[in-house]
Amino acid sequence: MIVVMSREATQDQAERVDALLREKGVRPVFGATEGATVLIAEESGTRELASAVQAAGGVDRVVLVPGALRLTSRHYSPQNTRVAVGGPGGVIIGGKEFAVIAGPCAVENQQQMTTVVDAVVAGGAVMLRGGAFKPRTSPYSFQGLGVAGLALLAEQRSRTGLPVVTEVVTPEDVERVAEESDMLQIGTRNMQNFGLLREAGRSGRPVLLKRGMSATVEEWLLAAEYLMHMGNGDVVLCERGIRSYERSTRFTLDLSAVAEAKRLTHLPVVVDPSHSTGRPHLVGPMSLAAAACGADGLLIDVHTDAAAALCDGAQALDGDRFAALVDQLKPVVEAVGRSLVQPRTPYLTQV
Amino acid sequence: MIVVMSREATQDQAERVDALLREKGVRPVFGATEGATVLIAEESGTRELASAVQAAGGVDRVVLVPGALRLTSRHYSPQNTRVAVGGPGGVIIGGKEFAVIAGPCAVENQQQMTTVVDAVVAGGAVMLRGGAFKPRTSPYSFQGLGVAGLALLAEQRSRTGLPVVTEVVTPEDVERVAEESDMLQIGTRNMQNFGLLREAGRSGRPVLLKRGMSATVEEWLLAAEYLMHMGNGDVVLCERGIRSYERSTRFTLDLSAVAEAKRLTHLPVVVDPSHSTGRPHLVGPMSLAAAACGADGLLIDVHTDAAAALCDGAQALDGDRFAALVDQLKPVVEAVGRSLVQPRTPYLTQV
Amino acid sequence: MIVVMSREATQDQAERVDALLREKGVRPVFGATEGATVLIAEESGTRELASAVQAAGGVDRVVLVPGALRLTSRHYSPQNTRVAVGGPGGVIIGGKEFAVIAGPCAVENQQQMTTVVDAVVAGGAVMLRGGAFKPRTSPYSFQGLGVAGLALLAEQRSRTGLPVVTEVVTPEDVERVAEESDMLQIGTRNMQNFGLLREAGRSGRPVLLKRGMSATVEEWLLAAEYLMHMGNGDVVLCERGIRSYERSTRFTLDLSAVAEAKRLTHLPVVVDPSHSTGRPHLVGPMSLAAAACGADGLLIDVHTDAAAALCDGAQALDGDRFAALVDQLKPVVEAVGRSLVQPRTPYLTQV
Amino acid sequence: MIVVMSREATQDQAERVDALLREKGVRPVFGATEGATVLIAEESGTRELASAVQAAGGVDRVVLVPGALRLTSRHYSPQNTRVAVGGPGGVIIGGKEFAVIAGPCAVENQQQMTTVVDAVVAGGAVMLRGGAFKPRTSPYSFQGLGVAGLALLAEQRSRTGLPVVTEVVTPEDVERVAEESDMLQIGTRNMQNFGLLREAGRSGRPVLLKRGMSATVEEWLLAAEYLMHMGNGDVVLCERGIRSYERSTRFTLDLSAVAEAKRLTHLPVVVDPSHSTGRPHLVGPMSLAAAACGADGLLIDVHTDAAAALCDGAQALDGDRFAALVDQLKPVVEAVGRSLVQPRTPYLTQV
Repeated sequence: MIVVMSREATQDQAERVDALLREKGVRPVFGATEGATVLIAEESGTRELASAVQAAGGVDRVVLVPGALRLTSRHYSPQNTRVAVGGPGGVIIGGKEFAVIAGPCAVENQQQMTTVVDAVVAGGAVMLRGGAFKPRTSPYSFQGLGVAGLALLAEQRSRTGLPVVTEVVTPEDVERVAEESDMLQIGTRNMQNFGLLREAGRSGRPVLLKRGMSATVEEWLLAAEYLMHMGNGDVVLCERGIRSYERSTRFTLDLSAVAEAKRLTHLPVVVDPSHSTGRPHLVGPMSLAAAACGADGLLIDVHTDAAAALCDGAQALDGDRFAALVDQLKPVVEAVGRSLVQPRTPYLTQV
Repeated sequence: MIVVMSREATQDQAERVDALLREKGVRPVFGATEGATVLIAEESGTRELASAVQAAGGVDRVVLVPGALRLTSRHYSPQNTRVAVGGPGGVIIGGKEFAVIAGPCAVENQQQMTTVVDAVVAGGAVMLRGGAFKPRTSPYSFQGLGVAGLALLAEQRSRTGLPVVTEVVTPEDVERVAEESDMLQIGTRNMQNFGLLREAGRSGRPVLLKRGMSATVEEWLLAAEYLMHMGNGDVVLCERGIRSYERSTRFTLDLSAVAEAKRLTHLPVVVDPSHSTGRPHLVGPMSLAAAACGADGLLIDVHTDAAAALCDGAQALDGDRFAALVDQLKPVVEAVGRSLVQPRTPYLTQV
Repeated sequence: MIVVMSREATQDQAERVDALLREKGVRPVFGATEGATVLIAEESGTRELASAVQAAGGVDRVVLVPGALRLTSRHYSPQNTRVAVGGPGGVIIGGKEFAVIAGPCAVENQQQMTTVVDAVVAGGAVMLRGGAFKPRTSPYSFQGLGVAGLALLAEQRSRTGLPVVTEVVTPEDVERVAEESDMLQIGTRNMQNFGLLREAGRSGRPVLLKRGMSATVEEWLLAAEYLMHMGNGDVVLCERGIRSYERSTRFTLDLSAVAEAKRLTHLPVVVDPSHSTGRPHLVGPMSLAAAACGADGLLIDVHTDAAAALCDGAQALDGDRFAALVDQLKPVVEAVGRSLVQPRTPYLTQV
Repeated sequence: MIVVMSREATQDQAERVDALLREKGVRPVFGATEGATVLIAEESGTRELASAVQAAGGVDRVVLVPGALRLTSRHYSPQNTRVAVGGPGGVIIGGKEFAVIAGPCAVENQQQMTTVVDAVVAGGAVMLRGGAFKPRTSPYSFQGLGVAGLALLAEQRSRTGLPVVTEVVTPEDVERVAEESDMLQIGTRNMQNFGLLREAGRSGRPVLLKRGMSATVEEWLLAAEYLMHMGNGDVVLCERGIRSYERSTRFTLDLSAVAEAKRLTHLPVVVDPSHSTGRPHLVGPMSLAAAACGADGLLIDVHTDAAAALCDGAQALDGDRFAALVDQLKPVVEAVGRSLVQPRTPYLTQV
C-alpha cells in the first residue's frame, strides 16, 4: 500500500497518516517520490483502509499494490520509466531507443582509456563504462585505481561528451563517484548491500542496479525499492547472469528475467552479456537475444588489448568485433520496433 | 579420434584397424555414419597413431577431434547439418529457414487435435507436436493416451500433410512410434536413458533430443553421440530450460547453451520456450530471443482450451497469441538473415 | 486417496470401486501392495467419497493421504519399513541397525573383485556393491562388463554369503539382474525412467532408488511410488548429491533431504558419500554426518588400486581408509541409539 | 606467497621487500598478522624468489602457499586456530570443545530477550546470538531495532556473563557494534561487502563470517582473507546453506563445505541449521550431522513465541526442543572425540 501525500502536505499531516495506519496495524516506511512524501507499507492494504486514509488531510492518492513490490511495480506506475543519463546530449534509457554502453572492465591508464573509448565510440557506443573501484574476490588481486581511476574516466567524459557509468562499492564513496560520473553502478555482490543502496538512493544520480548472482527477480526488484523510496526514481536494472551448475559459461544469462522484470516493473532493463557469459564468442548472440526479448540496452566489455587487461580481459571484445556486433544489432532492434540511440554530441557525429 | 572406413571396406579390414588401435592402448567403439563403418575412440588420438591407421587397408580417413565430442563435433563435420523431417513437402531444420513446430502438450482426443492443429497451421506452424506417451512425475497423473494417441496424431499428419514429432519413452516403443510419426522426441528425463538413445539411433527416424534439465552442454552433446554412432545423423537438439534456484519461471531457459551448442556442433538446435518458462507471457519474448541468437526453430505448446488441458495447459498459448507470435517472429528471423519455413503442402497454402 | 481392497475381493468388486470413483470425477490407478489390490488416485480425496467407497463390497479400508505422495507416505504407513535384502544371513535396512554397503564402482575382473571384497568385508561391510552395467556420459567410455560382470559379482556373493546390489539400466535387463543379485539399483540418471521403474517394481527384488541429480525430494518419492504401486514395497532410497553451482565437490550432498525423506516417508534412506562428493577425503566426514542425521546406511566406493580403476577411481577409498571409517562410524551410530549391522554369515565372522 | 617481517623490522625494511618483489613482477599487499607486518602476493611465488627475499633485512620468514588462499591456508598455519570470544569466562571456538550459540533471530524487546535467553541458557547454550541490525529483502519489512537492540543485547550479556554475537551491516556501525558485543557477525548478503570486511578486520573483535548464499568455498575463504590481512586472526566461518533448485528447504545446507573448509583452512567452522533449512523439524538432524562431520559449533534460532516473532519465527525452535536437541547432541559430539563447552560463568552453573 502506498500513500502519496500532496506536494503541499505538511509534516504534521504525514504524521497523522502514519498514526492512522499504525492504529490499523500497518507500519509504513516514509519515503519520497516525484517530489512528494510517500508512506509505504509492506502490507498490500485493503480498500477500507485506503478509503479511510484518502479522507485524511494532505493525501494526494492511495494506491493498493498487490504482491511484494511497491514503487517499482507497474501497478503503481503503468508507463515505462525513461531514465535520462548525462545532461543535454545525454542518453535516455527505457524509451523507444536502445542504448549500447561499452568500455573496459577496469580503468587502467590514460592511454588504454583513450584507445578503448575511441574504439567503442567508433563502433557505436553512446555511453561509456569503466571500473575505478573493482570488487575482487581476493584482497590480493588488483582492486582498481580508485580515485585516480575516477579522474581518468571523467577525462574521457569531458573529452567525448558521453555520459559514463562506474561502480561504487562503499557508502562513503557515493558522493565522490556521483560527482565524477553520470550514473552509479551497484554491482552484483552489492545488490543487497542496503547501506550502499540507501546512500545511492540519496545521491541524485541515476543508478544501474545489477542483479545479484543468486538473486530472484523479486529480490532484485526489492533492491530497487531501496533506491526508489529514498526518492531516486532513476533506476535501470541490469541482468548479468546467475549461478547455476552449468560450467561452459561463467554465469547463466537469464533472459527470461529480463522479460519478467519488464512485465512486473516500469523500470528499464539492460543486459550485460560480457560478465554473464564470460566468453567473447557468446557476447554477440546474447546481445541480439537481449535486444529481441525487450531489453532496453547493453553493457559490453571492450578491450583493445585483452591479453594485457588487468581484470577480466578474457571476456572482452576488441574494437572490431564490437563494431561488427553493433552492425548486427541494428536490424534486430528495428525488427522489434525500436532503433539504436542516435549520436547526440559533436564528438559522436564526427568520429 | 575417429576412423572412417571406406564404404567398400570389409568387416575384416575394420577388425584389423580395431586390433591396431587396441595394440596402442586405444579402445574404439564401432559405429556407423553416412553409410560407412566408423571406429571411434574416447581418446583424442595422436598424429602418429593417425598416420599408422591411415596406412591400414580400407581406411577412408582418420580425424583427430579434440575434446570429448566426436561425431557431433564441428571438428569432424564443419558444415551445418540439415535434418529433413517428413517426406516431400516436409521441413528442413538447420538450413537457412527457421521452423516453427507447434501443437498441444498432450494428445487428448480427435476434436481437440483438429481444433488445435487448425489453429497452429493457420498461425504459421509448419510441423506438429503432440504427446501420446507422457512421462509424468506421479504414476497417478494422466500418462497420455499411448497407442490411441499415436493414431490420433497420425490422423492429423495425413489430414494436413504436415510432419509430426512425438515423444517416445521406452526402447520397446521406438519401432511403433517411428512408424506412426516423422520424428522421435527424446524428453528431458530420458536424455541419459542410454538404452532408449541406442534404440532411437537405430530407428532410421530423425530425433529431437531435449536437453536434460540439469545436463551440461557437453553431456547433452554426448547424448547426441549415442544417437549418432548408431548411424543416425538426423539429430536436432532442443534447449528446454535448466533447473536453477530462480522460481519465477518453471526452469531457466539457457540461451547461451544454444549459441554454445551451435558453435561446438554442426547439429541444428531448436528451443522450447513453453516448457522452459512455464509462463505463457514469456513464450513470446523468449521465442524472439531464441531466433535472434541463432536457434533453428521453436517448439511451442498451443492449446485452444487451456483450462481444460489434461497436461501443462497453464503454459500453452491459444491460437490467436500463437499467430501473433509468428507475426512478430518474422522480422526478427529476417533481421538475422533467415526466413520462416514456407508452407509446402497444399493444406498449408489453402488454410 | 488410496482404496485397499480386501485380499478376498474379486476383480469385479475392484472394478465396481473403480467405476464408483470415476463417477465422482476421480481416476484411480490400479496397483498392488501387501498382496492386495489397491486403487490409488492422484486426488487426496474427501471424507464423503471415502465413506461412500468404504461401503462398497470388498473394500478393506480407504486412506485419505494429503499432498502428492500415496503409498510412500507416512500418512499411509506410519511405521518404518524394514527392507530385507538377501535370504537368511541377509541384511535388514531400515531397522535399528545401520548397514554399510561397499565395493568397487565397477566390476572389472575376478582378481579385482576378490581383493576389494576381502578388503571391504574385513573393514566391516555387510553387503556388496559393484556395477556390471555402467551408464556413462560418453558412448566411448567403458560401459561395464555387462553380463560377464554380473557373473563375477554373483561369484563373490556365493563365496562370501553377502547380499549384493547392482545397477540395472534398461527394462529388458531387469529379470536377469534380479536373478543374479539381491537388490536392484536404479541410478541417478534413471530415476525418472518410468519404464525401468515399472519393470523393477514387478521384479520381486528390493530396489535401491538413487535420487536424480536434480530431483526434488517430492519427485524422488514419486519415483518410489512407481515402484511401490507395482506391488514392490521393498524400496530403499539413496541420497547421492545434487547439482549446484559449487565446484569443490562433484555434487552437493543434500543431507537435509535425508531427514526430510525420513519424515515424509516410511522407507529407509541410505547415503552415497562417494559419488556425491567425488573426493575421498570427504567420504569419512559425510558418512559420519549421514549416520548422525538419521540415514539407515551407506553405500561406499572402495578400490584397492584406485589409480588403475576403470571408472571413478579417484573418489574411492582404499581398504585401510574404509576400515578406519567404519571404526569411526561405530560410536556415531551408537550415539544416535543404533548399532552397526552385525555379521551374520560364517564368512563374515571368520574374516 | 607471504613474507612475514620480524616484529622488530622497520617500515623501511618492509618497503625494501616491497620494492624487491615488485622488481620481480610480484605486487604484494601489506597486511598484519600476529603483531607483525606481512606482505602478501596473489602469486604463489617461487623458491628462488623466496630465497632472495629471505636474505633481505628484517624478514622473519617467507612462506610459499599454493592455490589462492594465503593467511587462511593450512599451508601457512597448520594448527587449528582457537578463537576466544568474550573475556575470562568466555568461549573458545575451534578447540576440542563444541560450542552451542543460540538466541532469537531478531532482538525485539526486553521481555522477549530475557525469556529466550533464560531458555537457551537452561537448554545448554554457552553464547548468545540476536540481531539488532537486520538486513531485509524489502525496505518495508522490520529492519531490526538498531542501536536500541544493541543495548538490549548488551543487557543480557551483562546479566548472564555470556558472550554475544550480533550482525553488523555497514562499515560505519562496526565500531559501535564492536563496543557493545563480543563478536561481529558478517551476514550472508555481506560476505563480499569488502568495505565492511576491512572495517571488521580492523575492529579488534572476533568475527563470525557467514558463507554467501551462492559463494564457493574458495570465495568464502578469500572473504576471510579480507579480514585476516587487516590483522584480525579471530575469524570463525559459518556455513548457512546455499541456493539450489530444491524447494523443500529454504537453502541447501552444504555440510561437505564444512569438511572441505576444515581441510583447507585452520579457522574454526560453525553451522547455522536454522536459516539454512528454514524448517524447525530439520534443525535437530542437521545439528547432529554438523557435529559429526567436524563442525566446531552451532548457531541456532530459538524463539519462545515463534508465532509472534517479527523475523523468521517459522524456523525457530522453542526452548524445550532446543534443550532436547542439546541432549541429543552431547553423545554425538563425544562420539567424535569432543565435548560440549562447559559453563564457565556463575550464571550458567546456577541456572
